[in-house]
Amino acid sequence: MQLLVINPNTTAAMTATIEAAARAVAAPDTQISAATSAIGPVSIEGFYDEAFAVPGVIAALREARDADAAIIACFDDTGLDAARSFAAYPVVGICEAGLVTAAQVSKRIGVVTTLSRSIVPLEELVGKYGFAERARVYACDVPVLELAGSGARAKIEQQIAQALQNGADSILLGCAGMTTLAAELSSAFGVPVIDGVAAAVKQAEALVALSLSTSKRGAYAAPLEKPYRGALAAFAPERPRG
Amino acid sequence: MQLLVINPNTTAAMTATIEAAARAVAAPDTQISAATSAIGPVSIEGFYDEAFAVPGVIAALREARDADAAIIACFDDTGLDAARSFAAYPVVGICEAGLVTAAQVSKRIGVVTTLSRSIVPLEELVGKYGFAERARVYACDVPVLELAGSGARAKIEQQIAQALQNGADSILLGCAGMTTLAAELSSAFGVPVIDGVAAAVKQAEALVALSLSTSKRGAYAAPLEKPYRGALAAFAPERPRG
Amino acid sequence: MQLLVINPNTTAAMTATIEAAARAVAAPDTQISAATSAIGPVSIEGFYDEAFAVPGVIAALREARDADAAIIACFDDTGLDAARSFAAYPVVGICEAGLVTAAQVSKRIGVVTTLSRSIVPLEELVGKYGFAERARVYACDVPVLELAGSGARAKIEQQIAQALQNGADSILLGCAGMTTLAAELSSAFGVPVIDGVAAAVKQAEALVALSLSTSKRGAYAAPLEKPYRGALAAFAPERPRG
Amino acid sequence: MQLLVINPNTTAAMTATIEAAARAVAAPDTQISAATSAIGPVSIEGFYDEAFAVPGVIAALREARDADAAIIACFDDTGLDAARSFAAYPVVGICEAGLVTAAQVSKRIGVVTTLSRSIVPLEELVGKYGFAERARVYACDVPVLELAGSGARAKIEQQIAQALQNGADSILLGCAGMTTLAAELSSAFGVPVIDGVAAAVKQAEALVALSLSTSKRGAYAAPLEKPYRGALAAFAPERPRG
Amino acid sequence: MQLLVINPNTTAAMTATIEAAARAVAAPDTQISAATSAIGPVSIEGFYDEAFAVPGVIAALREARDADAAIIACFDDTGLDAARSFAAYPVVGICEAGLVTAAQVSKRIGVVTTLSRSIVPLEELVGKYGFAERARVYACDVPVLELAGSGARAKIEQQIAQALQNGADSILLGCAGMTTLAAELSSAFGVPVIDGVAAAVKQAEALVALSLSTSKRGAYAAPLEKPYRGALAAFAPERPRG
Amino acid sequence: MQLLVINPNTTAAMTATIEAAARAVAAPDTQISAATSAIGPVSIEGFYDEAFAVPGVIAALREARDADAAIIACFDDTGLDAARSFAAYPVVGICEAGLVTAAQVSKRIGVVTTLSRSIVPLEELVGKYGFAERARVYACDVPVLELAGSGARAKIEQQIAQALQNGADSILLGCAGMTTLAAELSSAFGVPVIDGVAAAVKQAEALVALSLSTSKRGAYAAPLEKPYRGALAAFAPERPRG
Repeated sequence: MQLLVINPNTTAAMTATIEAAARAVAAPDTQISAATSAIGPVSIEGFYDEAFAVPGVIAALREARDADAAIIACFDDTGLDAARSFAAYPVVGICEAGLVTAAQVSKRIGVVTTLSRSIVPLEELVGKYGFAERARVYACDVPVLELAGSGARAKIEQQIAQALQNGADSILLGCAGMTTLAAELSSAFGVPVIDGVAAAVKQAEALVALSLSTSKRGAYAAPLEKPYRGALAAFAPERPRG
Repeated sequence: MQLLVINPNTTAAMTATIEAAARAVAAPDTQISAATSAIGPVSIEGFYDEAFAVPGVIAALREARDADAAIIACFDDTGLDAARSFAAYPVVGICEAGLVTAAQVSKRIGVVTTLSRSIVPLEELVGKYGFAERARVYACDVPVLELAGSGARAKIEQQIAQALQNGADSILLGCAGMTTLAAELSSAFGVPVIDGVAAAVKQAEALVALSLSTSKRGAYAAPLEKPYRGALAAFAPERPRG
Repeated sequence: MQLLVINPNTTAAMTATIEAAARAVAAPDTQISAATSAIGPVSIEGFYDEAFAVPGVIAALREARDADAAIIACFDDTGLDAARSFAAYPVVGICEAGLVTAAQVSKRIGVVTTLSRSIVPLEELVGKYGFAERARVYACDVPVLELAGSGARAKIEQQIAQALQNGADSILLGCAGMTTLAAELSSAFGVPVIDGVAAAVKQAEALVALSLSTSKRGAYAAPLEKPYRGALAAFAPERPRG
Repeated sequence: MQLLVINPNTTAAMTATIEAAARAVAAPDTQISAATSAIGPVSIEGFYDEAFAVPGVIAALREARDADAAIIACFDDTGLDAARSFAAYPVVGICEAGLVTAAQVSKRIGVVTTLSRSIVPLEELVGKYGFAERARVYACDVPVLELAGSGARAKIEQQIAQALQNGADSILLGCAGMTTLAAELSSAFGVPVIDGVAAAVKQAEALVALSLSTSKRGAYAAPLEKPYRGALAAFAPERPRG
Repeated sequence: MQLLVINPNTTAAMTATIEAAARAVAAPDTQISAATSAIGPVSIEGFYDEAFAVPGVIAALREARDADAAIIACFDDTGLDAARSFAAYPVVGICEAGLVTAAQVSKRIGVVTTLSRSIVPLEELVGKYGFAERARVYACDVPVLELAGSGARAKIEQQIAQALQNGADSILLGCAGMTTLAAELSSAFGVPVIDGVAAAVKQAEALVALSLSTSKRGAYAAPLEKPYRGALAAFAPERPRG
Repeated sequence: MQLLVINPNTTAAMTATIEAAARAVAAPDTQISAATSAIGPVSIEGFYDEAFAVPGVIAALREARDADAAIIACFDDTGLDAARSFAAYPVVGICEAGLVTAAQVSKRIGVVTTLSRSIVPLEELVGKYGFAERARVYACDVPVLELAGSGARAKIEQQIAQALQNGADSILLGCAGMTTLAAELSSAFGVPVIDGVAAAVKQAEALVALSLSTSKRGAYAAPLEKPYRGALAAFAPERPRG
């Protein structure tokens, strides 16, 4: 199967990290194709960045119509609902995939994200997915593009320790840029530490193996044909899909 | 005060309707300035259209930096969180404004929107605002741009009757394009029928009169300065705000 | 418009404070008429006081039948449901008005009230209005009638600091007697600090401007005509209203 | 033990019905003392009546300081929170007692009350007690004082049938005036039909046998000593209790 | 009435403690019959033990078909749903009974259980009963069979103190083995401290006095006649009950 | 990988159906090993059967200590929490796996199960997993062992139609015995129809590929070493695991 992994921010270095993480867990017959968004912010930190990252996600989907599934590899599941309305193949978000994975190996999930401004957006997302009572969000106060820097890991570990003390029995890394840390942190803390990118690869493979795609009845119905104006005119749905 | 009323879709005729509704309830010292989005779909019907309507909303805000408040006049509160992060002045959504208004004159709210594909998106919005147990969403199955056509009102009335039978004691019109119908429907059914556009004008005036603006602590903190790439590069936050 | 502001406790000095706060934000054409309840406790601190404050609220409404709207200016929204059933004009509570105002400028609300005995009653109220997940209640342990005393402000500030540390991005003052502090506290802490009295004035003006009154279908239907006995006989509904 | 059963409405005939129901299930050593409220409405139908029935409930408690427990025998649990703050002995509400009893013999509870205006008030009460997902409220549209009339039972049975069809596996009678019907309806429908008055007698006996009384820490702390003014001055707490 | 009190674990010494607690509060005409489970773990600490304790509970019910009611005296309400499906008489769980008792004398309940591994199972149980927002679970980290040892009480008191500081106004002892401590702890802390065993005796007596038994419509319908294989074959439902 | 698929009921014919469904979607390197429970009911219909099916599930796990993962193939996720506490490898339930799969391709899920007595147990399970607001349970009134009979499919289709009319945009088959119907029903109704068995195979493969196993911190900690008595003595945890 062809699996499109989209980095919704426009930083190619981060795409490389994500792509490696995806390849590391992909099944033998899964072809990973990683795409860096060509439109929007270099990192997604809060509601504003997120809004401007959605067209780039859809553009990546449009350019990969022969994919079998796609992953949106930013922890706010950037544009996931729009992407599911648009695509003919399944689309997986790394936050949702991470949560459903953690839910099958633990009872209480500590989500550790980057900046405190992302706590409420992620709490809203966690709540939308039905995990309000099982997952709690912590911020390590390291910006997305500084996760590779010195000091980042110590701050992440501090939040993990706090989450475990508050009752978490698993940790979900709340940023695609943390993907390289999962294995080591899991060993260090003795609990499952889940990386959403890896989790999403397996969820996407699962949906494809089950021949499932997004329902086109109801909220995810294909967008109605209509004109779009201005800088985004090219995104107009040309004809009903689905 | 200067009140910017943004029509997030790119259909100027609908802006005219919205502007008239806003003017009809504005206080004497409120100057209404209506803007039609220059970017995106001609109508917003579902998740996909909504995603592409957000940049146009922010563009309208950027061009009106001297406004005292803004209203986003589409019932999915298009880009409201991003707008609140961006703007220095208060931003009001017509769904949220309509709900908090209905909540102060009734116990159970029937929301009547256009297409059934919008039921779940609006249910999610209603839930996010805390009204999951008090409000229920109905669809009249009339597209946004056909609301002025013959037959639309009968279909809306049918859903209102259903909502009242199910226990609603007020009706919230779930599309800015229904704004002209509120008064007549209220008379016809003998219950409060609330138009979100009108409600939003009064909420915006309220916030300005109270000298309140969006908190810049936490989720609505000003977007961090960073580059944006591609078609949306112009939207990059140039320097920290707030 | 004629706006009746009712102080549900029987302390005239507190009415004066409330009245001044209301006048300070009222629109030019809003005539504020403040009434001190003539029946019941000198301050409302807990469930018992609240119950005995309701007849005084209704009495004030009965004496002001030509009002265009009324505000119940105690943070437990004393008798609000009964008042809405009784009155022909809209009735606004300062807790509900404060919450819906805070909700439009912030994501997480810290409510700071007086005594710890009021935490649960306010949590129940906050939950009834749909804000259980967004608002948390703190007590500064200063009695209502000592809010003007030395030391009160420091205790309030301590609770505000705690709320902000716990993630609040706005503060709602949980007692009408704190109304004078909002502006200064907002400056001191750099977040919106909302006074329910001021918020309620604007909500009441909004409802009147929209020609909305309480739905008389369902829970707020006018009380049925029937005899009342004993000390409260005069409150018997004489004939169906609405 | 001395058990005070308070009829919160001022209709003595209804007190007699309630008293008989209480005596029928009381333990041998339970002395039932029934009191008709001397203050307020002849029946309680909606928020307005309820508010004016609370002082009569407290008055009845004040006149029975040597009771071991009290029951508030109206299904809106009239003034229950105030009563628990006031009394030194346990106070039981028939709605809460009925729900916790039904909860121990069934999974889904159909509450059948009198008028449709009471649906939302009871839904709020049911929600406050934690049964929002297990109990649903139906109205038979018979006024409280006409429950003994011809035709009432058929209307009640119609709602019971509806509740069972919707998945209820027990019925809770939602008005003290229906107390005589429980046994016959239970036989007729083959499911537990619970009368709140009888349930409350057993809950009150249980609390007394366990030597439990209302916590005086927190929300139910004894009312603070303070003056009350006007028609209700006599209800002022004279000195701290508890 | 004949009241069967089942100790779901297989430690007879603990049954003796439970039986004494039950007898201490039983009504004069209540005959307590205590049974130690003959099948399963010597103590129940977590999900695994709980699963293996259920057959012993049902076996005890089968051997006491002439009982009028039964109590399952382990705080995880071991096998309560299965027991209610099986038995012709009412079955009461000590967790549920304790919660509904605490709910009638307080607003916020601190549940103090044994090991931290039981926190989530009890949180799930508390949530199922509708008390998620009112009760919080604490662990004293003393194993069930060491509750009588030195040091246990101090650890329990430490958790009670913590619960009260966090806002609890009553304490529910979260293990049948703590039953002897309720009275002393209540005196020491000045709040209601509820023992589930005692509470369950009174709830069982209440249901019998009201002639109520478990609904046989819906989820608690008698098990369908069918073969069971292997070590548990004797538990096969032989013919439809109810 | 070695994947143990456990049929928690003792009907070997149903195991064969389940095994075939599992093999049909298994990855090339997944070795399916199907086990029929040797202990307990021939079908699981309601709380009582479920309780007696748990030891057989654990027995199957004990006999397959070299498995890499296990699936519990009954829609009530029989003994899932106990199994996760016991096993060193991941354990997946078909209800949970089905829900998380459906959640990634749809917004509202119609669960169609067998008998109406299972509606509430499944509603409780759905709620525990966080899907109370997204999934609704329907019963087709066909017993488990009659699903292969004539007439069963028509009754299932009737409930699917009802679910779609009520807003579902995907269907989750609520019994392992329906596994053969998924593909045809999906074609017939044009929406995703998900079989929990197939979904569980992919979730198990995902967890193994990610090297994740159940957290042994907190609720899923390995059972403490202790004696078990009577018919289930062999299940005693011999030494701490994990």
